[in-house]
Amino acid sequence: MPQLAYVNGRIQPLADASLHVEDRGTQFGDAIYEVCAVMNGQILDWQPHLVRLRRNLAELGITLDMENGPLTLQARRLIARNGHKQCIIYMQISRGTAKRDHAFPGAAPANLVMTVRRFDFAQRIKQLATGIGVITQPDNRWGRVDIKTTGLLPNVLAKQAAKQAGAFEAWMVSGDTVREGSSTNAWIVKDGRIITHPVGTAILPGIARSSLIHLARAAQMLVEERPFTLAEALAADEAFLTSTTAPILPVVRIDGQAVGTGMPGPVVSRLADLVWAEVAQQTGWRA
Amino acid sequence: MPQLAYVNGRIQPLADASLHVEDRGTQFGDAIYEVCAVMNGQILDWQPHLVRLRRNLAELGITLDMENGPLTLQARRLIARNGHKQCIIYMQISRGTAKRDHAFPGAAPANLVMTVRRFDFAQRIKQLATGIGVITQPDNRWGRVDIKTTGLLPNVLAKQAAKQAGAFEAWMVSGDTVREGSSTNAWIVKDGRIITHPVGTAILPGIARSSLIHLARAAQMLVEERPFTLAEALAADEAFLTSTTAPILPVVRIDGQAVGTGMPGPVVSRLADLVWAEVAQQTGWRA
Repeated sequence: MPQLAYVNGRIQPLADASLHVEDRGTQFGDAIYEVCAVMNGQILDWQPHLVRLRRNLAELGITLDMENGPLTLQARRLIARNGHKQCIIYMQISRGTAKRDHAFPGAAPANLVMTVRRFDFAQRIKQLATGIGVITQPDNRWGRVDIKTTGLLPNVLAKQAAKQAGAFEAWMVSGDTVREGSSTNAWIVKDGRIITHPVGTAILPGIARSSLIHLARAAQMLVEERPFTLAEALAADEAFLTSTTAPILPVVRIDGQAVGTGMPGPVVSRLADLVWAEVAQQTGWRA
Repeated sequence: MPQLAYVNGRIQPLADASLHVEDRGTQFGDAIYEVCAVMNGQILDWQPHLVRLRRNLAELGITLDMENGPLTLQARRLIARNGHKQCIIYMQISRGTAKRDHAFPGAAPANLVMTVRRFDFAQRIKQLATGIGVITQPDNRWGRVDIKTTGLLPNVLAKQAAKQAGAFEAWMVSGDTVREGSSTNAWIVKDGRIITHPVGTAILPGIARSSLIHLARAAQMLVEERPFTLAEALAADEAFLTSTTAPILPVVRIDGQAVGTGMPGPVVSRLADLVWAEVAQQTGWRA
């Protein structure tokens, strides 16, 4: 079965899916996106993703002429027609196609693209046993990384640096503060407290981040939303990251230095149980 | 005659010109671009644009499998086939099309797009008589704006703010330093000295900027490449901006406050003579 994509109302083979060269996302990065996890054919945390998508459109003044109901139907239809039970759905909305000019065009309708890719979430559960390594990179991104735009070149360069260093992710460090990873949120654990950078303009408000805070607090675990330094991270008992495609992964090395024992620890293990139980609760999926 | 565009070796109607939805420029802003002025069918400052294009590709590690000779031929061919004597040519090169993943893809060939749009340079000469107004905006762009990438959303938002304020351009201010406009370089004149921000990572090294420095110095005018403050700009005798599509324009208002007399001054007038004489020299074009 060929992979299928959605472009402006039409489902078609992914191989043929295209946007005009004067799409504003393409020429200006004038676009936002969301990535959602799909397990057992069910979209995880769909409502929070929709809320964030609408907030990002509002921040940029992009009008999408489609309500949440039809958008949900189209997303579900694309997932069903692709036939993958475990996959990720990528949704991108640009300000439309218009003759190139920085200022907003008059009446260009937004371009909506959705693609679906098979994804092996079971690997993320296997990775819980060993954890992953991260490197650090200077955070040189723009001032509004809370808006989930396609202007991701600094993230691309940071992720590529991680890959070349044999690491899973790069943590973006501003001054001595660890903000977040290039496509994940960053966490440490010290004396039983679970610490992550507060939301604001300096990090992306991750859906997996928000979900984990709720789960941890419901389990009477102590979560602190405050900036933490690289030195704190290196001295932490445990560390981990969260994202849509990596709901929780232990971070056992930072720039080659072991975190804690250098092995996944008990707090992250307990959080992972909570995270994957929530996935099973929402979607029925178990590895 | 329909407008024509070039996409990966093929000249086609602009209306049909497209890139795959998984173009890395579209999904990540992982692309660079150039805009050149064409007068009398001749590309202005083509060699410096090529040098900058190659430098930007090298900075991002993007491989374009086309030497400067064929690239020049294709650009000239597209201009000739569009039949506009006065136009701008836009060239965009992305890291290619690949399954979405932040890190660089293995072997995706770069995507090269070129479009041509008719442009009325004579309006820029008319604007010399009255000048234009700018507003100021906080510079919240990433740390490598010297690389001419398609990640232009902060520039888009600044230009839109200018448009809504009835201004031509927005000057990006960091702390109290004026860096440059959203798509132009920024200049002031004080006591006969011509002052502009030095190159480095905080501004785009404009081709029109570089050309003007050479022309001014050859005419024994004093040019200082140094940071200047917004207060200096407001107290300047004259101000102006330069870019490919606005080779030189007097700035007579900053945030609604008059610069100098509030009318274009003698130094900008002399520079404009030099700039447009150089255009005539290179291309044979006169308004």
